[in-house]
Amino acid sequence: MNQKIKAGIVGATGYTGVELLRLLSTHPNVEVTAITSRSEAGIAIADYFPSLRGIYDLTFQTPDQARLDQCDVVFFATPNGVAMKEAPALLNQNVRIVDLSADFRIQDIPTWEQWYGMRHASPDIIPQAVYGLSEMNRDTIANARIVANPGCYPTCVSLPLLPLLQQGRLKAHMPLIADCKSGVSGAGRKGNIGSLLCEAGDNFKAYGIGGHRHLPEIKQTIQTLQADIADGFVFTPHLTPMIRGMHATLYLHLEDGCHPEEILREYYRDSPFVDILPAGSTPETRSVRGANLCRISIQQAPQSNLWIALSVIDNLVKGAAGQAIQNMNIMFGFDEQLGLQNAPLLP
Amino acid sequence: MNQKIKAGIVGATGYTGVELLRLLSTHPNVEVTAITSRSEAGIAIADYFPSLRGIYDLTFQTPDQARLDQCDVVFFATPNGVAMKEAPALLNQNVRIVDLSADFRIQDIPTWEQWYGMRHASPDIIPQAVYGLSEMNRDTIANARIVANPGCYPTCVSLPLLPLLQQGRLKAHMPLIADCKSGVSGAGRKGNIGSLLCEAGDNFKAYGIGGHRHLPEIKQTIQTLQADIADGFVFTPHLTPMIRGMHATLYLHLEDGCHPEEILREYYRDSPFVDILPAGSTPETRSVRGANLCRISIQQAPQSNLWIALSVIDNLVKGAAGQAIQNMNIMFGFDEQLGLQNAPLLP
Amino acid sequence: MNQKIKAGIVGATGYTGVELLRLLSTHPNVEVTAITSRSEAGIAIADYFPSLRGIYDLTFQTPDQARLDQCDVVFFATPNGVAMKEAPALLNQNVRIVDLSADFRIQDIPTWEQWYGMRHASPDIIPQAVYGLSEMNRDTIANARIVANPGCYPTCVSLPLLPLLQQGRLKAHMPLIADCKSGVSGAGRKGNIGSLLCEAGDNFKAYGIGGHRHLPEIKQTIQTLQADIADGFVFTPHLTPMIRGMHATLYLHLEDGCHPEEILREYYRDSPFVDILPAGSTPETRSVRGANLCRISIQQAPQSNLWIALSVIDNLVKGAAGQAIQNMNIMFGFDEQLGLQNAPLLP
Amino acid sequence: MNQKIKAGIVGATGYTGVELLRLLSTHPNVEVTAITSRSEAGIAIADYFPSLRGIYDLTFQTPDQARLDQCDVVFFATPNGVAMKEAPALLNQNVRIVDLSADFRIQDIPTWEQWYGMRHASPDIIPQAVYGLSEMNRDTIANARIVANPGCYPTCVSLPLLPLLQQGRLKAHMPLIADCKSGVSGAGRKGNIGSLLCEAGDNFKAYGIGGHRHLPEIKQTIQTLQADIADGFVFTPHLTPMIRGMHATLYLHLEDGCHPEEILREYYRDSPFVDILPAGSTPETRSVRGANLCRISIQQAPQSNLWIALSVIDNLVKGAAGQAIQNMNIMFGFDEQLGLQNAPLLP
Repeated sequence: MNQKIKAGIVGATGYTGVELLRLLSTHPNVEVTAITSRSEAGIAIADYFPSLRGIYDLTFQTPDQARLDQCDVVFFATPNGVAMKEAPALLNQNVRIVDLSADFRIQDIPTWEQWYGMRHASPDIIPQAVYGLSEMNRDTIANARIVANPGCYPTCVSLPLLPLLQQGRLKAHMPLIADCKSGVSGAGRKGNIGSLLCEAGDNFKAYGIGGHRHLPEIKQTIQTLQADIADGFVFTPHLTPMIRGMHATLYLHLEDGCHPEEILREYYRDSPFVDILPAGSTPETRSVRGANLCRISIQQAPQSNLWIALSVIDNLVKGAAGQAIQNMNIMFGFDEQLGLQNAPLLP
Repeated sequence: MNQKIKAGIVGATGYTGVELLRLLSTHPNVEVTAITSRSEAGIAIADYFPSLRGIYDLTFQTPDQARLDQCDVVFFATPNGVAMKEAPALLNQNVRIVDLSADFRIQDIPTWEQWYGMRHASPDIIPQAVYGLSEMNRDTIANARIVANPGCYPTCVSLPLLPLLQQGRLKAHMPLIADCKSGVSGAGRKGNIGSLLCEAGDNFKAYGIGGHRHLPEIKQTIQTLQADIADGFVFTPHLTPMIRGMHATLYLHLEDGCHPEEILREYYRDSPFVDILPAGSTPETRSVRGANLCRISIQQAPQSNLWIALSVIDNLVKGAAGQAIQNMNIMFGFDEQLGLQNAPLLP
Repeated sequence: MNQKIKAGIVGATGYTGVELLRLLSTHPNVEVTAITSRSEAGIAIADYFPSLRGIYDLTFQTPDQARLDQCDVVFFATPNGVAMKEAPALLNQNVRIVDLSADFRIQDIPTWEQWYGMRHASPDIIPQAVYGLSEMNRDTIANARIVANPGCYPTCVSLPLLPLLQQGRLKAHMPLIADCKSGVSGAGRKGNIGSLLCEAGDNFKAYGIGGHRHLPEIKQTIQTLQADIADGFVFTPHLTPMIRGMHATLYLHLEDGCHPEEILREYYRDSPFVDILPAGSTPETRSVRGANLCRISIQQAPQSNLWIALSVIDNLVKGAAGQAIQNMNIMFGFDEQLGLQNAPLLP
Repeated sequence: MNQKIKAGIVGATGYTGVELLRLLSTHPNVEVTAITSRSEAGIAIADYFPSLRGIYDLTFQTPDQARLDQCDVVFFATPNGVAMKEAPALLNQNVRIVDLSADFRIQDIPTWEQWYGMRHASPDIIPQAVYGLSEMNRDTIANARIVANPGCYPTCVSLPLLPLLQQGRLKAHMPLIADCKSGVSGAGRKGNIGSLLCEAGDNFKAYGIGGHRHLPEIKQTIQTLQADIADGFVFTPHLTPMIRGMHATLYLHLEDGCHPEEILREYYRDSPFVDILPAGSTPETRSVRGANLCRISIQQAPQSNLWIALSVIDNLVKGAAGQAIQNMNIMFGFDEQLGLQNAPLLP
């Protein structure tokens, strides 16, 4: 029997936390040994999340009690601003970190501080934090001590773009529009009015129209790969009345003679979690519900030169907890698919 | 007491039919005297739609029994292809018609026949049919004998565009993108698998990606007002898990120095059913639920030259039955708001 | 033109408040002249509830600014414990009150104090407060200065029972079970975790299993009419993933030879808001959505002597704001249906 | 490596079919070798259910092509009336059968024929068919050649009752009420109007009020264990606007001095899929979403002698496909939990 690595989860009371616990419960190489929450310390996870009754015997601990320094890996499923304070001490103890918050996603510190409205507590660590879009940075993730797990929108938007940007196939300085739709779980497990069933249910709206924090994150990826596209990037998030799921509709100006579907197929040939559908397909969010998958199709708009790429993920899985585990697998040299092979839940 | 006009509804078993009945039940100048359905003839409307118990004593009749020729106005809430056959006889009897189907929306017959896959039965009537986007064609509607009530997407997309197209403010030959999201009632009251709660619920997807019938309808409006824009028009419909509501997100290239919000405010100054929100607002579909309203905002995309217009309607009201009644009010010289002043249902 | 009465609403930021505003917007005899909210004072109602844009020009005021003493009627749409403090001063100014909270619903003060966990601030007013189940107490409501508007569950459960209790048709000391299901709006417009779309959506559960505050309220009604039934009363509330709507399933032991459907039909012959369906019908909550209606059916359980009564209301209308307006109509001698005749919104 | 058994699925186009495929995809001892559908023969399962892309290479075959006789086990996920015709030939080939339809659930043939409205095609097989409520009949299932998998309601209702009936703890001839609520997937993947999102969404109603087919099935179980209770059994199904999940609220007259929670705990001590919650708990359907679990609580009703048992399952898992696999595990001597240990999907 293999020796399991020990994992800790900081801030396991939210949706990404419970999703990490769900997915790790069947991971053959991982044992979750500590979960922390200042507010719920002393409460059994099975009482807090009844879906986990009979699966975990763990009890929330304060960060001090939890001895996270004895873990092999720690996941931060915390609000922004926590991981940047607690990461240095753990890194010093050779604990590897996957941060699901935004603390280490942006390399340019002034940009980060502007969008997140606080001073960064660990600017010296940022250069070694690897941006954890697994399919983009697999090699550097393998050697990373700290991985900045991407946001849900950046994952859903970037995966269809990566192969095209890498080959420079988008027309320079032309608009690149990402019209995105998210389920409500993206707003977290917080008692804010806008996330109530009676407010978000049977309703559709745009939000963050003045600028969403995932805008600079996506722009950073574009900038890295094809800088002359970044100035035309437009990102509009919308809230859709469902629990899980995210859908990106991308409008692209591609170079003439480009065969984008082939380019995507080739790029993702060895990526088990990215599925390129036949042209003309319309991926549904439920086709990835609960699974670490991104399904993509690309086709020309009718009566137009524009291309339309459609991309779906489960925002809590490939958009958060699943990709975090995928990154952990890569960091520890495990098979990338380990613990992530459950079929989507449909219906 | 005023003399009420007599109204008939052909095909009142669907969602637009029951919505016409709901709205007309409090209209002071209209009495519904006949409802027809071949399949449900003999069944009381109150048994068919329990929401109408105690409100209507009507029973479905076959078209023959119903004596529609004695009505002042007949609404067609039928599948495409019915109104074009039955309209001529009614027009000959001086019955005015509001057709909620697509039969008379497209002036170019070959285009209509291509998209709807049938020969048009009454091509001679098409020239006199007025396109019933009320805010665009108020004057000609007033004198029309037959009005082609617009589709839901064309209404939601065209209303924010009208003032800008009319002034020629969009940049020629640049993309004009309409990313649209519809509630499921737009698919009608038919037992198709894709509209089941277990298929459409907790799910989001694009559809009609190869070309939707509302594309040529919207293009016709654009062509009329600013022809050099039509070739760049892209329209992507999506299905969102809610009953009512439609949201359009438009991406516009406007001429420099343009003040679109002012232009819209000015254009709709006397239009009681179009509400221009302050820039930065994000209209919600529920803010118009059950009401004959379109709410619109327009603003520049962050870090971009593109403009984003957001537009919401209730697809069954301003997108169908409500606009039909608005058109009827205009045709009969009634106050445009008559019977249409109920507040939206929120939550 | 008739002189309109002036109405004030205390606590108009919640769901019953916005529903009062929606319904009163078309009431011919009422003008809303004041809305109060300590937390939102200074904010226009149209900014707070975008569904009311263009309908009301009102701005939230503090209770002091609002001069409620100049109103003819004041509705309390407040949390429990507010109306009991503010009612005396208004009553002294001859302002009539409809209290939608629970402050004056229970005549027995120790019972009230036990279930609501506070001392009652105005015990002297309780005897003159009339319990506003309109169909039960129409005559006393007509002369009331203060009406205690019933809870949503008590309305939905009591209406099918009233005629049977009044005639003493239930078997003494036998169980009388009310298995009730409510939409989430019953929990109010508060940011509590349990009402989030991601918690209450796609989920069903019982709650308040140890005793719900509407239990003593319903028991009081039973006690009044047929006291020997009260000890067998069992009430189980459940939360169902919808916005509006309430459904009661009642299990009744009726005397042999009883024809309950006839008894209900007779009792409600002149009650426009109670609709007795044919036996074998199953009323749907959506058949009353947005309308001041209670639809009821009663039939024998298959292979059993038990009777099953099914009852549906919109919890925000007949279960709150609609019944409040119905009571106001009765108090001021208006036609009981005034302002309450809109058809339900279906679908 | 162990030799896998070969499984076939007849009628894999419905919700129980796709759920069998989802669950079996990670079962270590089973290989699905054939799926049949007359209507979809020739279509790849991955095209039919996009959630299964990349998981199964199977294509629907006609029953003739599929060579089901070479399977070790065949699951019937068919409409009622199919399995009873096809079972004999398979049994003759020593293929074991788990029938998810109702064909073999009722031992009394006239009762079955009355409720299902057809003549039974294989009455001679009924005596050897074992009723597959796993926790009730584990021993006989182990030796069965054909198992009649229970209905969803019978599973949800019977599991809390079994321990009490077995000990004869219910009071004879007193009412035993099961007020049940089901998600819409229980109605199957068929295009009927009542299951549309626009009909079943944001709505709650009872149905089958005149008698539901699961009534005789539950009565048969009661009759077997404590016959003097059966005449008081009342069963009311309701439809609740969610995809998956079933909730039973049971009202019980128990003998004085009975400690039902202890009795249930003791009975289910070795049953990994039945979870007895602490008294006062209210199990939520989402706490078992996607998992083969039944969670139960039991407590006294407030101010009453009646007991209330609450029981939740996922109707597609413990109420159908999951229990079918559990039964297969028992039939083949596998660990009962094999392939069924995934955590519920929450949120």
